[in-house]
Amino acid sequence: MAESWSFLDTSEPNFRPLVVIELAKGTKEETIKWFTKRIVDKKANGGAQLLIKPLVTENGDENIYLVGASHLRLLLGAETVGLVKECNDNSMRTFTYSSRKTCKDFADDNHSFLTMAECQYIIKHELENLRAKDEKMIPGYPQAKLYPGKSIVRRLLTSGILVQIFPLHDREELKKLRHSWYGRVKVGYQPLDEIRSYFGETIALYFGFLEYFTFALIPMAVIGIPYYVFAWEDYDKYVMFATFNLLWSTVILEVWKRICAIMTYRWGTLLMKRQFEEPRPGFHGVLGINPITGREEPVYSSVKRQIRIYLVSLPFVCLCLYFSLYVMMIYFDLERWALDYHEENESNFSSLMLFVPSIIYAVVIEIMNRIYRYAAEFLTSWENHRLESSYQNHLILKVLVFNFLNCFASLFYIAFVLVDMKLLRQSLATLLITSQILNQFVESLLPYWLQKRHKRRMKKRMWSLKTDTDLSLVEQVNLEKEMGTYFGTFDDYLELFLQFGYVSLFSCVYPLAAVFAVLNNITEIYSDALKMCRVYKRPFAEPTANIGVWQLAFETMSVISVVTNCILIGMSPQVNALFPDSKMDLILTVALVEHLLLAIKFIMAFVIPDKPKDIQIKLAKLEFESLEALKQQ
Amino acid sequence: MAESWSFLDTSEPNFRPLVVIELAKGTKEETIKWFTKRIVDKKANGGAQLLIKPLVTENGDENIYLVGASHLRLLLGAETVGLVKECNDNSMRTFTYSSRKTCKDFADDNHSFLTMAECQYIIKHELENLRAKDEKMIPGYPQAKLYPGKSIVRRLLTSGILVQIFPLHDREELKKLRHSWYGRVKVGYQPLDEIRSYFGETIALYFGFLEYFTFALIPMAVIGIPYYVFAWEDYDKYVMFATFNLLWSTVILEVWKRICAIMTYRWGTLLMKRQFEEPRPGFHGVLGINPITGREEPVYSSVKRQIRIYLVSLPFVCLCLYFSLYVMMIYFDLERWALDYHEENESNFSSLMLFVPSIIYAVVIEIMNRIYRYAAEFLTSWENHRLESSYQNHLILKVLVFNFLNCFASLFYIAFVLVDMKLLRQSLATLLITSQILNQFVESLLPYWLQKRHKRRMKKRMWSLKTDTDLSLVEQVNLEKEMGTYFGTFDDYLELFLQFGYVSLFSCVYPLAAVFAVLNNITEIYSDALKMCRVYKRPFAEPTANIGVWQLAFETMSVISVVTNCILIGMSPQVNALFPDSKMDLILTVALVEHLLLAIKFIMAFVIPDKPKDIQIKLAKLEFESLEALKQQ
Repeated sequence: MAESWSFLDTSEPNFRPLVVIELAKGTKEETIKWFTKRIVDKKANGGAQLLIKPLVTENGDENIYLVGASHLRLLLGAETVGLVKECNDNSMRTFTYSSRKTCKDFADDNHSFLTMAECQYIIKHELENLRAKDEKMIPGYPQAKLYPGKSIVRRLLTSGILVQIFPLHDREELKKLRHSWYGRVKVGYQPLDEIRSYFGETIALYFGFLEYFTFALIPMAVIGIPYYVFAWEDYDKYVMFATFNLLWSTVILEVWKRICAIMTYRWGTLLMKRQFEEPRPGFHGVLGINPITGREEPVYSSVKRQIRIYLVSLPFVCLCLYFSLYVMMIYFDLERWALDYHEENESNFSSLMLFVPSIIYAVVIEIMNRIYRYAAEFLTSWENHRLESSYQNHLILKVLVFNFLNCFASLFYIAFVLVDMKLLRQSLATLLITSQILNQFVESLLPYWLQKRHKRRMKKRMWSLKTDTDLSLVEQVNLEKEMGTYFGTFDDYLELFLQFGYVSLFSCVYPLAAVFAVLNNITEIYSDALKMCRVYKRPFAEPTANIGVWQLAFETMSVISVVTNCILIGMSPQVNALFPDSKMDLILTVALVEHLLLAIKFIMAFVIPDKPKDIQIKLAKLEFESLEALKQQ
Repeated sequence: MAESWSFLDTSEPNFRPLVVIELAKGTKEETIKWFTKRIVDKKANGGAQLLIKPLVTENGDENIYLVGASHLRLLLGAETVGLVKECNDNSMRTFTYSSRKTCKDFADDNHSFLTMAECQYIIKHELENLRAKDEKMIPGYPQAKLYPGKSIVRRLLTSGILVQIFPLHDREELKKLRHSWYGRVKVGYQPLDEIRSYFGETIALYFGFLEYFTFALIPMAVIGIPYYVFAWEDYDKYVMFATFNLLWSTVILEVWKRICAIMTYRWGTLLMKRQFEEPRPGFHGVLGINPITGREEPVYSSVKRQIRIYLVSLPFVCLCLYFSLYVMMIYFDLERWALDYHEENESNFSSLMLFVPSIIYAVVIEIMNRIYRYAAEFLTSWENHRLESSYQNHLILKVLVFNFLNCFASLFYIAFVLVDMKLLRQSLATLLITSQILNQFVESLLPYWLQKRHKRRMKKRMWSLKTDTDLSLVEQVNLEKEMGTYFGTFDDYLELFLQFGYVSLFSCVYPLAAVFAVLNNITEIYSDALKMCRVYKRPFAEPTANIGVWQLAFETMSVISVVTNCILIGMSPQVNALFPDSKMDLILTVALVEHLLLAIKFIMAFVIPDKPKDIQIKLAKLEFESLEALKQQ
């Protein structure tokens, strides 16, 4: 490959802008010169060997740059990031420039061999891996220190010189995608492969999971409907429903792993080698030697971090949990007050008032969740984790614990302390429906409306009223750089996780929850699609092979729901009637059933293979080939 | 490397015998000629390029051959099997012939760079990978079919032409090892590194685990003694003891993973790449194409195997379990009969008679376990698993389920049906002690005695009464080839597993179990060491990085023991007295505590990292280096 870099052409005539770099207004000339030189410089000189062009706007500002790359450069970059492509023999293999001819659809003039999202990912990777050589600081900014090996882009970002880097939309492609995704009324699957080639694997996998999860909920919803229609109150029927639910939830989570493996194998990310993780942008510390790489980089004592986690974060989280419980008790006071009011002066208004506390509480929960989210982000960032993955894990843990308690504590209290199944059902319904409506509104419709308004204003300001697709590049960039940033799939998964909790934790008292969940998810698919295509800046594609820690979170929830459902069934009058003489026998039976169900769950999870047979064979084949190749050496 | 094979010298003057091949008496001349030619043939011609010499015995038989290899050949073989060695910079790296100079202690004339066990492992690997080219059958034996790629040695073994292949003992080394291992009275650790270099990683890891487990039991034993001495019957003390036990057992299993990682990192096996698994010797089927390798080899339909597993093996196992329960009921009849007898004619003899049923039952359990073991091996082998690992997993599952029920069913019955704690304690003690005595006798002392007797007879037959170390090579080979074969660590781990069950399942009623376990394990170390050094043929070294499925088995046992101990404590009169009014509250409290303990267990298992920080760093360093090397390419 070494020789290829030298004849690499960086001055391609037809420059195709892929990524936008926005610098702060008034950035010093020498900084810009140095930075652009580093970007176009040859690999051998420590550059990224990309193409860069300033965007000339009407007011003559030169703070926005467009980055592109020659076709050859992108192919070599695809090898560097370790993309996996389908070969002519239908196997998936890590792409190398030297073996490019064996790839399916490869031709030297086929510029769509790499999708635009892949090209943008490669450029992002190359920019982030642009490292300081002997520079001690960013030219022109003595306070922005550099040391050998420090990522230049990350330092520019943290010192505010670089405002943002984002990939450009492809308006033609986007229009096609929008049409096939949500533009027409149709029954069928989402175009996941197209979503993946436009937005990358992480987002496609989220939509794949959302779709799969919705389909998986349908049997639960269908079985749940007659319970509502015929107002079945027989707990023996509920027992059947709950048992089905518990086993079903195990099966769907296991089957998801298989489906996920099939998808990511097709997309190549299942085989992609993990890249070595660099410190996250916000990480800081005194300069030291990294014991793994032997390079000079900031180090931060793990003891200090532990102290921050256990002496600050942990108490803070506990305090928040306490506060959440306190708010819950206020809600119950309100509830009691509303009930008293209703009993005193019975009227239509007063019976409507009965729902008010639940609705207020649901709104308060949503607000608290959102405020806590900011606090958790601040704290986790302050804990100064070196790796993004460790940061994410600590953040997710903090947020999950709080959201779980905040959303479900009142339901647990009603179910197991007040033992009021009617109130439980009512609260569950109010919480579920209110939170769904709020979410849809806050997440998609509100930003969409804001965006629309903004766009209108932008257009007015530009004194041009062209249609969407006619926008010039300048207009497009100006429009897109003002769009909101999509911060990843965290919130979307969290919403699904809480929904899964509403559906499964108390499924045996409120079978209708699954129906609402299905309805919500169908609109969610559309509103999320709208959000991705219309509201937010295009995000960089992020290769991934699975849904990560969320799999564990969903599995934990399904274990907890076994326990809650068994207790609920044990408390029901019908089941109690089966053991008229001895409460003890009842409890022992319930405990036995619970343990049996848990054992079955674990055995099922163990027995169902995580990857389908044919994917296993394909992976084994690749492994065998690489072992054989090693032997041949 | 390719050029190294050609100048490889196979006719070294000082031939050192490493491995013994025993052919059946009367093997045809042409077969021997063909087989030895394949062994000494050049790699390029599909040979193993080893050295072979017939052993000339006094009666002129030529059916025993000694195999060795030149130093260079062994070094190249070490690269082929992927040995990991320590380098001069104290890091562990996969050995390659070209980078041999960077290895610690390497010198061209240092023949102890590879341990004898490693040399023998390499030779075994090379012999097993001696594959048929265009031979359709073994010359001279038309019924012993061959096809391209079939392992010759495996076909020779299955058709009975090859009686056995075993590595020779090194009497000097063995004497040193014996001395430092059990030859002198000393307090201290076992020489695990020496055991590893003589017997290989699998066996060293077993002894490491046995030692670790014994040390880990000491706190439980120490805390248990006062319960016996002062005859404490306070259940609140038992509660403390049981809680300690449960958390302790989680901790020790997690810490073992870390210790195991430290040891196997030092030994290099933690880093060793898994070799591609070939079909196990006993596997048969019609010739087809392996979808993974694309090679012609026997294939066997997975459906047929599933049918055999679910329609034959599963019912058979269930039948055995039923039979075991039936025997248990007979034991309880005997027990009742003995009690009646004791009450009728009270005497010293009759009170002794009280123990007889338990002892008989313990002996019967051991016998049933052993018979079942053969049946399980037969069945699993008949299921025709392609891979040794899948065979082992099915065998272990079958044996574990049966042994668990066979050993513990009576205790469960006494504890939870008869609710007789005194009888439980007595049965537990009898079962534990009897099984330990039986095991030590059957496993080590009996074979040792038989071996001694055999050796004496051998020596008489040879009309020579030399001392042990003076034996000539011929005598040594003749002696060793008659020794029993060590069939792996399965039985040893199984014994420890059952012991762990006795100690942990009912620990809160019989704290003394840990004391017996410690005492047994101390003698077990010595008797197992004796067994390895004196009784059995030297086994081939087998590299391994962990104790495999046994880790899971021990963890499962510790989960089950949480449940049993919680129930036992809940049933105790003292705890019952705390809830005088309501049995319900009692059961609910017990259930709550149980769930809490299980949750703590899982969280602890999750929080304690499987590898110590420094090993993690070392592994990350290696990974980083290999990624960097890839980039440099």
